[in-house]
Order: sequence, then C-alpha cells, then structure tokens
Amino acid sequence: MAWINDNFLKLSAGYLFPEIARRVNVFCNSNPELAKRVIRCGIGDVTEPLPEVAVTALREGVEDLASRERFQGYGPPTGHDFVRAAIAQSMFRERGVDIADGEIFLSDGSKPDASHFLELLGSGNVIAVPDPVYPVYVDTNVMAGNTGAMVNGRYQGLVYLDATAENGFVPQPPSQPVDVAYLCSPNNPTGSAMNRAALTHWVNWALSNDALILFDAAYEAFVRESDMPRSIFEIPGAKKCAVEFRSFSKNGGFTGLRCGFTVVPKELTGRARDGKRVPFHDLWSRRWSTCSNGVSWPVQKAVAALCTPQGQKQMTALCDFYLANAAILRNAIAAQGLQVWGGQNAPYVWLKCPTGLSSWDAVDLLLREAQLVTTPGAGFGNCGEGFLRVSAFNSRANVQEAGRRLAFLTTSASKR
Amino acid sequence: MAWINDNFLKLSAGYLFPEIARRVNVFCNSNPELAKRVIRCGIGDVTEPLPEVAVTALREGVEDLASRERFQGYGPPTGHDFVRAAIAQSMFRERGVDIADGEIFLSDGSKPDASHFLELLGSGNVIAVPDPVYPVYVDTNVMAGNTGAMVNGRYQGLVYLDATAENGFVPQPPSQPVDVAYLCSPNNPTGSAMNRAALTHWVNWALSNDALILFDAAYEAFVRESDMPRSIFEIPGAKKCAVEFRSFSKNGGFTGLRCGFTVVPKELTGRARDGKRVPFHDLWSRRWSTCSNGVSWPVQKAVAALCTPQGQKQMTALCDFYLANAAILRNAIAAQGLQVWGGQNAPYVWLKCPTGLSSWDAVDLLLREAQLVTTPGAGFGNCGEGFLRVSAFNSRANVQEAGRRLAFLTTSASKR
Repeated sequence: MAWINDNFLKLSAGYLFPEIARRVNVFCNSNPELAKRVIRCGIGDVTEPLPEVAVTALREGVEDLASRERFQGYGPPTGHDFVRAAIAQSMFRERGVDIADGEIFLSDGSKPDASHFLELLGSGNVIAVPDPVYPVYVDTNVMAGNTGAMVNGRYQGLVYLDATAENGFVPQPPSQPVDVAYLCSPNNPTGSAMNRAALTHWVNWALSNDALILFDAAYEAFVRESDMPRSIFEIPGAKKCAVEFRSFSKNGGFTGLRCGFTVVPKELTGRARDGKRVPFHDLWSRRWSTCSNGVSWPVQKAVAALCTPQGQKQMTALCDFYLANAAILRNAIAAQGLQVWGGQNAPYVWLKCPTGLSSWDAVDLLLREAQLVTTPGAGFGNCGEGFLRVSAFNSRANVQEAGRRLAFLTTSASKR
Repeated sequence: MAWINDNFLKLSAGYLFPEIARRVNVFCNSNPELAKRVIRCGIGDVTEPLPEVAVTALREGVEDLASRERFQGYGPPTGHDFVRAAIAQSMFRERGVDIADGEIFLSDGSKPDASHFLELLGSGNVIAVPDPVYPVYVDTNVMAGNTGAMVNGRYQGLVYLDATAENGFVPQPPSQPVDVAYLCSPNNPTGSAMNRAALTHWVNWALSNDALILFDAAYEAFVRESDMPRSIFEIPGAKKCAVEFRSFSKNGGFTGLRCGFTVVPKELTGRARDGKRVPFHDLWSRRWSTCSNGVSWPVQKAVAALCTPQGQKQMTALCDFYLANAAILRNAIAAQGLQVWGGQNAPYVWLKCPTGLSSWDAVDLLLREAQLVTTPGAGFGNCGEGFLRVSAFNSRANVQEAGRRLAFLTTSASKR
C-alpha cells in the first residue's frame, strides 16, 4: 500500500493566497453588483504590459519555433549559456559582484526554486525563518519534514526571528544554533530593506556558525538607496555561506511568463554525514539535469533581452512606476493617521491596523465596505497580526482609488 | 552547519544524457572536420516546427502580454480552467474516458512531474521500476531516499522488473510486496507498447495489492493499434490505483516550450501512518499551490489550441511523420540482420547489438566510425546491456542517412 507523506497533514490551512481568492469569490458571488468595483491590492501581481524588448524577443522566439532551420528543442536544463552569461554580466559583474556564468541557474520562478532547494538539504537541519514571512519558506519546510506540529500559530522545530516595528522589521540573527536561515530583502511582506551593515552582520553570523543563508532577492530591482545591497554577494564572504533566489516576475513583469534564477556559488558547501564538505553547486546541477528540462525558449530569449542596456532601462522604468504607486499608498495611509512602513525600496506597503482591528478583520472590512483586496499581516506569521500588506502592483488609477478607499479602515473602524 | 542530503552521494554517475552529450562534445572537439557530419538520434528531441495552431496561439499569447487590457499575470498554479477543460474534454472524455477538468494538473513537463510526485509519498514505500527504465524514475527515488546504495548496477531497496526479449519488453507485476510501481507505455527506451490485456493485468494487481501505479504515457500519441490503450484510465478501476503523466513534448513538439500534465483522479488515495486514507488529489493541489506559479501564459494558450479538432489533426500528422522515420530505421536495422523492436507505436527503435558488442561500445563505434549518436541500452539498466536505442526524432533526410550509417554496426563489428 502506498504511504503518503504525513508531513503534509501538519499544514494548518490552505496556502494564504488561495484563501484570500476564495473570500473574494464568495463576496463577488454574493454581491454581483459590487463585484465590478473590486480593486485587487492583495497578491503582488503585475498589471503593466511587458517591456518592449521582452515583447520583441518573445515574438522572435515564437518564430524560431515555427521554423525548421531555427527550431529549438530541449535546452540545457539549467539554461542556455548565452542567457546565463547575460544575467551574470549585467546583473552582477557590471555592478562589481564577481559571479560566474555557471553560477546562474535558470528556472521557472523563485517560488519553485526556494521549494526545490530543500531537496539538497538533509534531515536534521535547524531552520530559521523571519516572522512575518513569505509562507512558501515555512510550508515547504513543513512538507519536507523539517518541522513538528503547529502550536499556537508556529511550527515546532522552526526558529522564528521576530521582525517588529521596534527593529524596523529587520530580524536579528538567532542566538541559538541554527543551520539554515531564510532572509528576504527587500522584504515580502513588510517592504523593509536591509542596509549594508545589517546584511554584513548576517553574513558574518553565517560564516561564524557555518550556517547557510537562503537569500530571497526577488524584489532587488526596487532598491533605490545606495546603502542597500541588491545582492547578498555584494557582502564579502557571502559566496561561502549563501544562495540567492531571483525573479523576473516584478522587474520584467514576468508573473505570467515564469522565469527566475538561483545563484549558487561554486565555493558554497554543506556537510555530509561523514564530515566531508560537498559543493551545493554540484548537487543543484545534478538535481536540475535529473528533474527538469529547463525554461521555455521564447522566455529565455526575453530574459536575455532584459539584460541588454535597453532592457535594463525598461526594467527600471517599470519598477519606478510601481514605486510611484507605493508612494501614493504610503501618503494615503499616513493621511489617515495610521503608521506605515515599506514602499520606498519595495513594492509593498505595510500598515498598522487601527487599534483593536485584527488583520483578517481589516481584510474583510475593506473587502465588504470598500471592495479593496489586501493581505492580512497575520497570514504571514504571528508577528504580522494587526498589520496589513497593500500591494502597489496595479494601474495608477486603481492605486489612487485604493488610496481613497483605505480611509474606510479608520472611518468604519471608529464607528464600531 | 548545513547538512546536505546524503542520498545524492549514492547516485553512481552523471545523468545519462549529459554523459552522452559529453562524449559527443569530446569527439567533435577532437575531430572538427567530422563534427559537421554528426547526426543525433540520441535524445528524443523533436526537430520539426510547431504545429500551426500552436504558433498562432503563441503569437496571440505574446500580444496579450504586450497589452494592458489583455495582460495576464499569475494564473492558477495548476493551470487555467479553460486549458484543463480543453485537455480533459479532447484527450479523455471524447475518447470515452471519464476524467474531470479538475483532475488535470498542468506543469512544465512530465519529467518534473514524475520527480515532484515523490514529494507526496512518505518514507518506507517499496518502489518497483522496470529494467530497462527511463533513468529519471530511478535517480529521483535515490535522491528522495527510497533506495540503498548501488550494487552491481542496481540500487538496493528498489525492486527491478525485468523487461526482456522473452516477455516482449513488457514486465510482469512483481511477486513480492511493492507499494509503488512505475510503468511507461509506449515505452521509453524499448518502444514496446502494452496492450489492453497486459495493462488490465497490472491494474488488477495494483487494486489487489493496494499499490500505486505511476503511469508515464508521454508517448501515447504514437499508438496506432486499437488494442493498445492510450491512457491507463481506459482500464476499469485505474482511477483507484494510478496517476498518469502526460507530455506535449512529442505530440506537439513542445520540448523547447515546456508543458505537460498529470492526471490525479479524485478517488485515488494513499495511507497515512494513522491508517486514514488521504486523497492524492488534495496533496497534489496543495503541493502545486505552495511550490509553483504554473505554466507560461502563451504556452497554455498553445496547449488549448492543440486540443481543438484542427490541433489534434496537426498533432497526429506530426506523430505520423516521426513514425514514418521509425519505420525507415526499423527496416534499415532488419536489413543488417539485427533484431529490432519498437518503432511501431512509439518513436524509439530498440535493437540488439551484434554479438559481443556492449551497448557503450556500440555507441562509441557509431559515433567514431559513422558520426551517428545513439543511446546505450545499458544506460537504462542492466537488462538494457547489449541493446541500443535509436530515436526517430530527426529530419527525414537525416533518418535516411542514419539508416545507412547503422550498417557500420555490423560491418565494423565483424572486422574486430
């Protein structure tokens, strides 16, 4: 008889975003006349068309596949060489970060990458996650058997690193022994970004403790302050203690196209049971050649186009657009007298709900009264309770209207 | 300190196809004047342009992403509803097989699906694989910790089911207790296809033993004999004991586009440690919503186009082209006086090497003397030793030339 992976049964609830989608659907079905008014600032999904360079490359990629002479079949599982080279050159070496072409591993997104990387880790690792946290880090560790049961909103066996208003939503390294730690900067969900000193502190902690940092830099393109690293590999020593997950979803608007990459430095090693050091680069290469056939050809061509000088300008312009949205949301929230964080080097704005209003109450209130979809801070962890994430990914007109509707948070709450 | 997954260290060698690619590269670099002559009948990679319906849909999909009004971002992680419906309707219900839209899970290929499905299985399952076998089934189980060490070409803990000339390369169900069994029909690498009686025998075995069949039907579109099922779900009871992996790589020529799907029936269950039955459908849904953001939008549109009547005709024509190639290869091999199998309901031709010639010897000989790339039977398992797989995926002219060059197998071998 086939035994299932019992770890799945520890998962406490559905994945956060399908749950929000479910509530929105219930509302829309019960209130069809209001359904048209709904503005979605919940998930971080882009709304603007692709950059022109990407469209041109996609068109060419499709025509390649329509032609016997130019046809492309299976590519290398870790990405075509010219794409890996374009990424390493434009996103790292031109910014003074020494990353080799072969340290770039293309994939269909940073969410799958963060999930699949756990396949390389053995059992018995103590894992640390920030709180609040992108739920993927936690849920994939639950599935992989790296946790115990959930008790009071936290999985036993995981080390939670509190990110609070007091520490500017930048968690400190753990005081207890930890083998693997997740970091995300600029942060999802809080919109905070780590400066060079904070990230250096983390890298030094990892080097001293022989720990591995899984660094999620999916939002690096939104960094506008020079003191904030866009890659952990800007920090000396990071190549010995970190991998970095990157995405084209936000900078290139590729949420519907699917492409990201992971940087695995050749000198990064883990420990086998016999004490030998084993390069993660070898393990990740083997994992990819065995389990995947790589990324869609037209999409790879589009990625290479984003890496050209013209493509980089268009990515910057796209991010600037969403950052301007974020500024509108920040101002609207501050005008309500509510505390607000993020949105300056990140596309997410993080606000404190009016006193007495829980995260999910606030989400439900904004949906019911204002037809505005947001994400509950509590959905990202216990420390997120009482906060709300508002995504700046939307059209300018919708964001301006969302800014007005956020007023319901204080006007409705004061009427209770 | 971060512990690695020691199971990776059990993997005996590089993944088969990169090893062949390495040998071809070495040959080409050492013999640049012969490099141009190389004909690749090694990996099963398509060479013909995409069907017209797919090209049209891809073009539209790209223009959608260039437009704010038609833009598509994140889709449902398991595929857009209209695509799941198109597949379930055209590939199952119209052929009399009762599969619901929601039982279709889109992915970036059947190789990743076969790999990821192991995440749903707990430890302690006894796994059976055919021999010879598509190496992905074995290697992913090694990585997942479902095997012991390799001894004499076989991993301890796995149950190997011999496929030989005597049983027509269709393995029988195991006589010992097994929890999970892989089947692939039409078969990679042997090109054999199971008839209705043989597959019914397997389904009945699984039902009697509460076992799970992981059925790889990536090559179903090549079946031309009416007695051979194109889906395991044509067999009564299969929905209680099987999942099916499907691919658009060969029927639609999508090797470079990346799309496949897995059918997980709602009534299929496994057993938890507490004895409860748990639907795999729930586990697979949870896995997908947590670990992925689905398949590229233009590719999903192209899949829906393949499912139209016109698309189905174009897929059939594409498969017919490769089947005609396979017939040419079969005839050329038989003309040499060599035994040959497959190539009639499958795009692979399987031949017995001349006496005394090992699989790898034959591969090296054909590369060196004839610049023809093939795949060693021994690369698929101990029972494949002495056999060779020749892929029919190539242009007509190349296949005709490959047929002539296969003569080196007997002429060179006889000179030794």
